[in-house]
Amino acid sequence: MKILVLNCGSSSIKYKLIDMPANNVLAQGGVEKVGLEGSFLKLTLPNGEKEILEKDIPEHTVGIKFILEVLTSEKYGAIKSLDEIEAVGHRVVHGGEKFNSSVLITDDVIKSIEDCIKVAPLHNPPNLKGVEAVKELMPEIPQVAVFDTAFHQTMPQKAFMYAIPYELYTKDGVRRYGFHGTSHRYVSKRAYEMLNIKPEGVKMITCHIGNGGSITAIKDGKSVDTSMGMTPLEGLVMGTRAGDIDTGAVTYLMERENYDIKAVSNILNKQSGLFGISGVTSDMRDLRKAISEGNERAKLALDMFVYRIKKYIGSYIAALGGVDVIVFTGGIGENVNVVRDAICDGFECFGIKLDKNANDEAIGVERNISAKDSKVTVLAIPTDEEFMIASDTLEIVKK
Amino acid sequence: MKILVLNCGSSSIKYKLIDMPANNVLAQGGVEKVGLEGSFLKLTLPNGEKEILEKDIPEHTVGIKFILEVLTSEKYGAIKSLDEIEAVGHRVVHGGEKFNSSVLITDDVIKSIEDCIKVAPLHNPPNLKGVEAVKELMPEIPQVAVFDTAFHQTMPQKAFMYAIPYELYTKDGVRRYGFHGTSHRYVSKRAYEMLNIKPEGVKMITCHIGNGGSITAIKDGKSVDTSMGMTPLEGLVMGTRAGDIDTGAVTYLMERENYDIKAVSNILNKQSGLFGISGVTSDMRDLRKAISEGNERAKLALDMFVYRIKKYIGSYIAALGGVDVIVFTGGIGENVNVVRDAICDGFECFGIKLDKNANDEAIGVERNISAKDSKVTVLAIPTDEEFMIASDTLEIVKK
Repeated sequence: MKILVLNCGSSSIKYKLIDMPANNVLAQGGVEKVGLEGSFLKLTLPNGEKEILEKDIPEHTVGIKFILEVLTSEKYGAIKSLDEIEAVGHRVVHGGEKFNSSVLITDDVIKSIEDCIKVAPLHNPPNLKGVEAVKELMPEIPQVAVFDTAFHQTMPQKAFMYAIPYELYTKDGVRRYGFHGTSHRYVSKRAYEMLNIKPEGVKMITCHIGNGGSITAIKDGKSVDTSMGMTPLEGLVMGTRAGDIDTGAVTYLMERENYDIKAVSNILNKQSGLFGISGVTSDMRDLRKAISEGNERAKLALDMFVYRIKKYIGSYIAALGGVDVIVFTGGIGENVNVVRDAICDGFECFGIKLDKNANDEAIGVERNISAKDSKVTVLAIPTDEEFMIASDTLEIVKK
Repeated sequence: MKILVLNCGSSSIKYKLIDMPANNVLAQGGVEKVGLEGSFLKLTLPNGEKEILEKDIPEHTVGIKFILEVLTSEKYGAIKSLDEIEAVGHRVVHGGEKFNSSVLITDDVIKSIEDCIKVAPLHNPPNLKGVEAVKELMPEIPQVAVFDTAFHQTMPQKAFMYAIPYELYTKDGVRRYGFHGTSHRYVSKRAYEMLNIKPEGVKMITCHIGNGGSITAIKDGKSVDTSMGMTPLEGLVMGTRAGDIDTGAVTYLMERENYDIKAVSNILNKQSGLFGISGVTSDMRDLRKAISEGNERAKLALDMFVYRIKKYIGSYIAALGGVDVIVFTGGIGENVNVVRDAICDGFECFGIKLDKNANDEAIGVERNISAKDSKVTVLAIPTDEEFMIASDTLEIVKK
């Protein structure tokens, strides 16, 4: 069954056409700068090369229409007719407390996703635009919503509540929701499969480390805590996001520098993290280059990045009462052996020991990277959120 | 040597007259509601009873003058003449990056403490008022400043920096300073003494848990990380303080509820924590009473309180690469066995095991509360910040 997976952002739409259940990717790419000048579609050709097709894309429906044209075009097409697409799966960022799993999109579901705009004003509106566009262009096709937050809905209340007046939770929905759920779910499932074990009784920590990053504590296959919060700002040091910071320091800054909410949010989300500390880059490759050239602040940024991850792993070992499996995924977690090595350095106290060769070789491949005598199994697993979305979509439309 | 220890807040002045080095407390009490209606001095009589002396105390100099009068009065006096007081030690909240240890107060030091008002606008001004008042009333007496932040000045940069634009650190002083340093230093020193070990090579975690609370990771006798941040808001769930929270949730609330900086700071500092969640009390005794009466939200508040502490202990074990000694102190840490028990529950994974009887008996006394087969030594130690202040003062004026 051919499933189109869509990830609609405010100015971009990523797509992947996947033949399921084989997870055979037939086409992939995305439109960029939707609603902006210089918009274009970039696709990956079967030989791996990229092709850029410029086109004026004022809004999402035009973008999705263009994607569908390209998918069926003579020159770049992967399919002959749109009829071959049997379902569309959407990444939806915020399912609030309404969704703890993926769902077939109905009018009621759209209404519920709209209700979640309250807590995700930036993310859900473009997700919904994608749903509406597909509804308009392919009205007969079933659509499925897969939520970034759904996997974390199993967190106990002590983990998802903030210690603020209780009414701010009931009235304003202020709580930890967590994100990257599809990725944490995917790699945890793969980990059980790789190790040929059942989720029951297993204490696992999954580290999704990329430009954005989050860490999740998983018990019996269920998320019990995660580092991102009500928004994707909390937790780790990220490419441009600050992660954890004393709120007292933030209000101090607002007062002292006369920042309004927008200004301080912009600083914490877009000018902080690796970029803010190093002053030169948010990109791990460039950061390591800067370090090799003697840039002290780049070194500090990486030290902070690693140190924060170490502390979260420790805190989740405490939350779980131990750990059996640690998984690294995400752009950095999958590919950067030196970062994994730095994170696990000194973790003999937890029974964690890497196999140096295995770790060095695990670049973009699934691999057990722990030493034979490590009490904790450490895995590197490339994430595949689109497969997970396609997989949920397949399961739901088959019903 | 008789040393007067002063802790000057914005509307209160606590005092203790201590004969050193014996740590013999000759008198103690405090004035309350300085500058407000209904101000009074409350002192503890030698038999343990409290006495309240009402008096109009419009500002700090009058308050300190009143304290000195009471100290030498015929009815309540502990000394015959002020000449018996040989030095005054002050608790000063914020030493910024200028002070990594206690100092004799000179005009230059006062200037430096004034410079720190920038980062501690609420705390340092009343501390300074106390210094000026003593200078006026007893101009010949040496005064010593003991800073809450000083012990934490040994933190490495990766632990004290926030992942925000570097310039906000250099220009605005935004970084983790940490507080309760005098308490963490005192109990760590007592722990080495109790166990008859040297600080070198020892990995220790000190948990100061009271109405305010903070946890510190100590290596080789030096603070290497601590849970309070630039302000005392960060970290643990406290009586009325939220501790850690997604800043994205805070800006969301400001926007949604139209809170200004003052309103949101007030909520996070004064209406949150145990009080905010339970809706009934910030006091651990009352909270436990409410739980025993079936109050679900009180139960949630305690669960969150304990869970946050557990996570910090885990993260500091990760930071230290292990742990040898854990110390509980502060109003709750010293006295509430069930909280200590809940914190250590499930910590066999770290080699932590309490001795039930020892833990139950350790109420306000120094005690090793770990089981004989516990790999980690767990201690309950009543803190004594005033003794530490007197001790530093003694050492400095003896020079």
